Amino acid sequence: MNLGAQKDEARQSEGIGTVRTQAFTFGNHPVPFVLESGESIGPVTLAYETYGRLDADASNAILILHALTGDAHAAGFHEGDTNPGWWDDMIGPGRAFDTDRYFVICSNILGGCKGSTGPSSENPLTKRPYGLEFPVITIGDMVNAQKRLLDHLGIDRLLAVVGGSMGGMQALQWVVSYPEKVTSAILIATTAEHTPQQIAFNEVARQAIMADPNWNNGDYYGLDLPDKGLSVARMIGHITYMSDDSMNEKFGRRVKDKKQPFKFSPEFEVEGYLHYRGYNFINRFDPNSYLYITKAVDSFTVANGKPLYKLLEGVRTRVLIIAFSSDWLYPPNQSQQIVKACKVAGADATYCELKSSYGHDAFLVEFDEQTYLYSHFLKKAYDGRRAS
Amino acid sequence: MNLGAQKDEARQSEGIGTVRTQAFTFGNHPVPFVLESGESIGPVTLAYETYGRLDADASNAILILHALTGDAHAAGFHEGDTNPGWWDDMIGPGRAFDTDRYFVICSNILGGCKGSTGPSSENPLTKRPYGLEFPVITIGDMVNAQKRLLDHLGIDRLLAVVGGSMGGMQALQWVVSYPEKVTSAILIATTAEHTPQQIAFNEVARQAIMADPNWNNGDYYGLDLPDKGLSVARMIGHITYMSDDSMNEKFGRRVKDKKQPFKFSPEFEVEGYLHYRGYNFINRFDPNSYLYITKAVDSFTVANGKPLYKLLEGVRTRVLIIAFSSDWLYPPNQSQQIVKACKVAGADATYCELKSSYGHDAFLVEFDEQTYLYSHFLKKAYDGRRAS
Repeated sequence: MNLGAQKDEARQSEGIGTVRTQAFTFGNHPVPFVLESGESIGPVTLAYETYGRLDADASNAILILHALTGDAHAAGFHEGDTNPGWWDDMIGPGRAFDTDRYFVICSNILGGCKGSTGPSSENPLTKRPYGLEFPVITIGDMVNAQKRLLDHLGIDRLLAVVGGSMGGMQALQWVVSYPEKVTSAILIATTAEHTPQQIAFNEVARQAIMADPNWNNGDYYGLDLPDKGLSVARMIGHITYMSDDSMNEKFGRRVKDKKQPFKFSPEFEVEGYLHYRGYNFINRFDPNSYLYITKAVDSFTVANGKPLYKLLEGVRTRVLIIAFSSDWLYPPNQSQQIVKACKVAGADATYCELKSSYGHDAFLVEFDEQTYLYSHFLKKAYDGRRAS
Repeated sequence: MNLGAQKDEARQSEGIGTVRTQAFTFGNHPVPFVLESGESIGPVTLAYETYGRLDADASNAILILHALTGDAHAAGFHEGDTNPGWWDDMIGPGRAFDTDRYFVICSNILGGCKGSTGPSSENPLTKRPYGLEFPVITIGDMVNAQKRLLDHLGIDRLLAVVGGSMGGMQALQWVVSYPEKVTSAILIATTAEHTPQQIAFNEVARQAIMADPNWNNGDYYGLDLPDKGLSVARMIGHITYMSDDSMNEKFGRRVKDKKQPFKFSPEFEVEGYLHYRGYNFINRFDPNSYLYITKAVDSFTVANGKPLYKLLEGVRTRVLIIAFSSDWLYPPNQSQQIVKACKVAGADATYCELKSSYGHDAFLVEFDEQTYLYSHFLKKAYDGRRAS
């Protein structure tokens, strides 16, 4: 056994081991799930995973909310897999989200394609995939669906909601929609509303998908997939997740491969990386889900024109807000606006800007400082949980 | 006549009036134009315009170099047009590039599609458009072609070379390749080499074009154009030309049009703007030219791995370097690197960072400060031109 394999095994045995994704279905006929738009959908399934054990009084639950293309598999290993969940470094015995102490839940979002109901799911009316018949969804709808899951799990109040990027939007929506159900919240690299620049990047990604003739107005299931369009969309995303500095460190101007005759195949390493990321994505993500979820994010404006502090008045949730210095997709000033609103409202908010060159991706990479901050913050919420 | 029309007429009569694009052809058989790659191409035509009159001793010539999708029509009006050239505010009697004093030349680039030889031109070997048979070109090739044009015009030495963005790369290349032919240079919102992030944006744009089935490996002339792909490419560009702030000022989160049922048509104003920019582009730009020119820009590294100051040692060209505070495509630190190299080399360099919220587009919008800076800088070069 080589050193890498030994390390992998050690890592597996130290972590939470093998896990399984579960499913919860609600909104069955004749009582569908009602969306913020007024439309209804049902049945709705949410895929989720849990790690650790729920206390007898259900007071140790932490809900982890994933980013745009994430899933319920946040930690541990699926049977036979060699790669753990997307935030395994943060979740497990002795880790930031310490499964010896906390009951950690991660739920895939409504509209997704990782076991939850989304545009690739069967429309009960037609017995065919929804495609564009799927209703428009919002971050609020995602949160309301999660609320149903927590009711099902017997959790009346969360010790914490935690999320980065789009997960942070959901966490903020939780604080605003269900303040009495959330003892504390960790909002990471996120915003209270999407700006025109953020909308613009997503719109170009959507246009790239819809420009692909295989997209076929969203009706491509069982046919050729709009793989080229989705790949371009994903490449745009990856540029915004990194920073100029992290790209410089990782690729510089190094040339990967110079084919002759040159026909615009990838030449620089950075091009090869983007292609790899783009073309792998089609194997794991539904293009229509990408449309619906980016649209939910673009529509996100938690205060909807009102001053945000107005919505936070009287809120007793303790909030930790984290931004990363080189994140230009959700730059620190957007986090600071949330902090300011909390302060004006008299809510308990702590802000920390972490120095990192990794750009927006930092929350998936910078574990040491996050672990230090989150474990102390959660410990305090945990120790005081029965007092509040 | 309404006020707008009166203003237009006043503007026309104040400016340089009606102009015509001219053409210069060289590299005819059997002596083609040799590229930096070692390949040859011929004949080569450059479209160009001139404004003002050349002095008897040809000492008052200024070469204006355009950006990625620009053309030779920098100032004045084409017969029957109501819109002037792209930098008309800067060029004309009494303007920054004062045509009462200077002879101003603007040349379309090699590889372009605005009257100069590029991939949409006829390949003399096949009598069909080059398409991908067109050779790879560099910023250096563009500059060497411009040198041929100046020889033809009888200009041995330029009073100034001036360019923004890709035009600035050409201007810097002029200083490095032909220092003794350039009295002064104005480099605006530019860089000495493309970084991986800049390459990445262009590569995604190229992928968007090439993902369009109509692109057909570059062989689409006379057939359906890859309009959707080019449109997505152009949208990506426009995001990088603006700033977060200028987008906020211009669009905010205002909703343009909410069609029911919603099928992912543009909804926010910013989306409508990008669509407008994207879909108009196909009427004025050749998709293959976009591939070749972005590739030339990505390959640009004027010092090619050497320290830039080494190439600037002994250079007597006076250099003015301008950056804009909110330009995140070619951020001020890239201009500062050129300044630093000039200083280390002992070259005469002046740097100015202009405050603007317009992002990279600022050089096409912020005229007052640019006029003030450039007219004084050029006057000094003009007054001392026979001493050097």
